[in-house]
Amino acid sequence: MAKLENKQVIFKNFIDRAPQETDLELKVSDIGPRAPSGSGAFLVKNLYLSCDPYMRGRMRDFHGSYIPPFVPGQVVEGFGVSKVVHSDDPNFKPGDLVSGLTGWEEYSLIKKTERLRKIQLDDIPLSYHVGLLGMPGFTAYAGFYEVCSPSRGEHVFVSAASGAVGQLVGQLAKLHGCYVVGSAGSNQKVDLLKNKLGFDEAFNYKEEQDLNAALKRYFPQGIDIYFDNVGAEMLDAALLNMKIHGRIAVCGMVSQHSLSDPKGIHNLFNLVMMRIRMQGFLQSDYLHLYPRFLEHVIGYYRQGKIVYVEDVSEGLASAPAALAGLFSGKNVGKQVICVAHE
Amino acid sequence: MAKLENKQVIFKNFIDRAPQETDLELKVSDIGPRAPSGSGAFLVKNLYLSCDPYMRGRMRDFHGSYIPPFVPGQVVEGFGVSKVVHSDDPNFKPGDLVSGLTGWEEYSLIKKTERLRKIQLDDIPLSYHVGLLGMPGFTAYAGFYEVCSPSRGEHVFVSAASGAVGQLVGQLAKLHGCYVVGSAGSNQKVDLLKNKLGFDEAFNYKEEQDLNAALKRYFPQGIDIYFDNVGAEMLDAALLNMKIHGRIAVCGMVSQHSLSDPKGIHNLFNLVMMRIRMQGFLQSDYLHLYPRFLEHVIGYYRQGKIVYVEDVSEGLASAPAALAGLFSGKNVGKQVICVAHE
Repeated sequence: MAKLENKQVIFKNFIDRAPQETDLELKVSDIGPRAPSGSGAFLVKNLYLSCDPYMRGRMRDFHGSYIPPFVPGQVVEGFGVSKVVHSDDPNFKPGDLVSGLTGWEEYSLIKKTERLRKIQLDDIPLSYHVGLLGMPGFTAYAGFYEVCSPSRGEHVFVSAASGAVGQLVGQLAKLHGCYVVGSAGSNQKVDLLKNKLGFDEAFNYKEEQDLNAALKRYFPQGIDIYFDNVGAEMLDAALLNMKIHGRIAVCGMVSQHSLSDPKGIHNLFNLVMMRIRMQGFLQSDYLHLYPRFLEHVIGYYRQGKIVYVEDVSEGLASAPAALAGLFSGKNVGKQVICVAHE
Repeated sequence: MAKLENKQVIFKNFIDRAPQETDLELKVSDIGPRAPSGSGAFLVKNLYLSCDPYMRGRMRDFHGSYIPPFVPGQVVEGFGVSKVVHSDDPNFKPGDLVSGLTGWEEYSLIKKTERLRKIQLDDIPLSYHVGLLGMPGFTAYAGFYEVCSPSRGEHVFVSAASGAVGQLVGQLAKLHGCYVVGSAGSNQKVDLLKNKLGFDEAFNYKEEQDLNAALKRYFPQGIDIYFDNVGAEMLDAALLNMKIHGRIAVCGMVSQHSLSDPKGIHNLFNLVMMRIRMQGFLQSDYLHLYPRFLEHVIGYYRQGKIVYVEDVSEGLASAPAALAGLFSGKNVGKQVICVAHE
């Protein structure tokens, strides 16, 4: 039987800095047109691939994390939306749409089929299954409701607020009756936050001389909840502006490494003075809440109470630049790669 | 009526470094022998005064804390055990023993009488009312049970472990069925931790080249709970050794200032990877638990299950050196000043 030509994105080697386009390379390989009989696997055609900041952690030669590193010379792994082409698993049939861990390539043979979910919602854009309804959306949901312990009327600060996670945190906080301010790295993003995503206020951190002063301007009475997607200087400034019994949900620092932050965090003494709870979390610890998340967020989306901004780059060949762009803030909204429309 | 001669310890002026003996000075003043009629106040003779690390925070010109700074030129305020000499408050009579906020002087006129508790336990050393049964003991109790969420069999690390708070944290953790390791700054203290206070292991951090390696040696499987009394390098090392879902109770950094820690904390990315909860706290937020604390800890003490090590310096004139000594680790156990034995 003729093999299928299969374009792939290969992870070249480990790095100890922010990813660059040249850390990945395109290769043309081939793949059998069927899942081997008796394998229980299925073959998918990949439609949408997700670019996420956590992937930086998999590009380091470090095995102590919650997820193993990529294998040099092998195809990049990531979340995606795919269509089943051939299946040896009785639970999936050709034409089924699935989301979950797949490869950065045109076709993938999925052996761990339990890591994919069947998509049965036809009124929601397919790519949202790696964004609003996928890992980033669920991170926002679990982090906001389970880690931040929000109350109506509280003042919430979100960094990287137009990103895949931040934009949903802000909208959930507004729906919860909170006052919400976001920071982002361009005026276009600030505009998006204020005029499309419904944040009360937003600012461009790159235009601020003094982040502490900026936060004091937007939170003269202090911050109840800081949803931290960035760490570093912004975390240090937020620590100085927390209210008594404030909470900090730490989401984004997973992409950092001690070496990339030579100055360190200086204001932790405020954890004591203000009795702050600072908590790191991963969405994977809250998977029992996933059905409730889907119900809530799909409901809000259908009622028009939530929107989701994506930055879709076309074609697998755009993937290396799309991933690298995440770390210079090039993306406006959730970064997705469209490999094929159907 | 003749006035009483009243030796006092005066706070000279604000500082931005660790306290030194010369930041305080002795002065002889006088005081009326009675609480003014109609004042509702009472006059006490101070017996024991407490030296606590948090007092450093009151020696800075900073008004944003949970407790106001000392007033330059005025007598130092602190916790003490005192005997009522004369009272205009019907709830207190001469001879009553009280504990709570008083002055670093021989006699104090107490106007805010609600800030003192009457002592009614005659089988407990009087000085323990500023240590084991006072603020430090209650800090250990609230921090361990309410912030650390301990479970039997968990591995607990305590820094400044022979100090006023640490020594009780370790003993409570042992009584809870935990494995407990403490760090301290001298071999004498290490010996105390292992042979008197019942810690499973202890080490002298000053003799370790690499704190990360030291913690790996004592916690090959990682730390479930870190009760942090010191911050800085030890916190950074502990962050690298926490288990998944570990907890860090942040107690001691209140005595620090960003300027005193130019290197900052670098390993917070581990909060995310290991999903760590790091929480600052103050005992004053848990005062509703104080009666339960007294019942538990007095019970343990009477059953011989808890001991408490004090470092008592004799005479009010020793107070400036005793306070300064806290910040170089001179004290072995809880630092108390005995002003008068009765």
